[in-house]
Amino acid sequence: MKIGMIGYGNVGQHLVIALSQNPSHSIVVYNRSSIAESDQLDSVTYSSHTSILDSVEVLFIAVKDEAIIEILERIENVIPKTTLVCHCAGSISSTVIEPYFTNFGVLYPLQTMSKLKEVKYNEIPLFVTSSSPESEAVLKELAFSITPKVEVISDQQRLSMHIAAVFACNYVNAMYEISHRLCQEFDISFDVLKPLILETADKINFLTPKEAQTGPAIRRDWEIIYKHEEFLQKYDPHVSQVYRLMADYITKKH
Amino acid sequence: MKIGMIGYGNVGQHLVIALSQNPSHSIVVYNRSSIAESDQLDSVTYSSHTSILDSVEVLFIAVKDEAIIEILERIENVIPKTTLVCHCAGSISSTVIEPYFTNFGVLYPLQTMSKLKEVKYNEIPLFVTSSSPESEAVLKELAFSITPKVEVISDQQRLSMHIAAVFACNYVNAMYEISHRLCQEFDISFDVLKPLILETADKINFLTPKEAQTGPAIRRDWEIIYKHEEFLQKYDPHVSQVYRLMADYITKKH
Repeated sequence: MKIGMIGYGNVGQHLVIALSQNPSHSIVVYNRSSIAESDQLDSVTYSSHTSILDSVEVLFIAVKDEAIIEILERIENVIPKTTLVCHCAGSISSTVIEPYFTNFGVLYPLQTMSKLKEVKYNEIPLFVTSSSPESEAVLKELAFSITPKVEVISDQQRLSMHIAAVFACNYVNAMYEISHRLCQEFDISFDVLKPLILETADKINFLTPKEAQTGPAIRRDWEIIYKHEEFLQKYDPHVSQVYRLMADYITKKH
Repeated sequence: MKIGMIGYGNVGQHLVIALSQNPSHSIVVYNRSSIAESDQLDSVTYSSHTSILDSVEVLFIAVKDEAIIEILERIENVIPKTTLVCHCAGSISSTVIEPYFTNFGVLYPLQTMSKLKEVKYNEIPLFVTSSSPESEAVLKELAFSITPKVEVISDQQRLSMHIAAVFACNYVNAMYEISHRLCQEFDISFDVLKPLILETADKINFLTPKEAQTGPAIRRDWEIIYKHEEFLQKYDPHVSQVYRLMADYITKKH
């Protein structure tokens, strides 16, 4: 299949690497600025001119959310109206493409793609949303050429899943950061917390998060909660606020 | 060594199991209510009378934080004044024992001890605080008989480490719970998030949490943040509040 990619940030680059592992795909990448040679793949063609995209069968737009419409406007008259055009954003509806192209969809990789750490592509679930059974078939075929973990979902499900991922990943990491900063401040090695962190993550394979909840809040141990809050108030009021809101959440929802 | 344990909840029971694996220890457990036979170990003596404790060399108090003082008052006249008496609480100063016993300390296991899941004792770090070099030597010896991961820390370090653990473990799990609930509500399998959760936890072995941060907040993607907040406002205002406070925290601290 002839595949076009617009954008070569985290998501775009990772998708191109993953897709290029299947020799039956021919891939072209359009990126506004030129791409460092070390980031280029031999089997992929790169260009900073949209004309490179004019004969692709499927086109992916992997740019920042707020740039998607601008890209659609720019390519509207370059790409045939019936080309299957998809974006890769969790929280943007597939229908933003509808005014520009007849066949559209979304290919959403649910993963925290950090350029600093290697990614195992076949473990990343890919979520497909599409405008028609035909588009769905094409997107599923492409997705299955990367990973066995492919699911079809609606725009609303993708939005709620993106939010669920923000909590389970981005905000979990922010909790690690708060913890890391506290350790540094009081001269404790963050390493001592690592087994606990891995154990906490591992637990969800055996228990629901509700069953796995431990700590002062679930015990309604207000004496400790107030003591921690007071300690944090002197250290960093913003962290103290986070502490208290989470304690309130746990005591109210359990 | 003749060891006494007061309390047989999560921490008490796990410490007794771990200590009993060393045949040179003789262990007695005092618990107010009787303990189910299935929870009893053959090599350990159980009683609901404090008199069982009168000849122990080291006594651990592993009861709820708010019951520690009450226990100290009850045993004050049963146990010799010079017995090494320790509690196992993260956020209580070792000095609460000082009015009752001359030799005192804390043995704090840094782990989320859930009765539902097996614990690997030799991977749990044990933190020792003590009133004298002699007490420290005894506690370190006992701690090293369970795990190679033993560290000596101050009362303030233990308090801040406990708070760091609340964020890295209890509040991380609460984030999983929010995520789990969202998935259920919108008919998405929580399983799809599990690789992401494990990847997020694994990342801290390679990057600092600050380096590992991803998501809409670190990108200052306010359009997405507002969209998520609006979505959550209709779903659960408390969750929306957590979402926003964390987004604010990340944008301000990075």
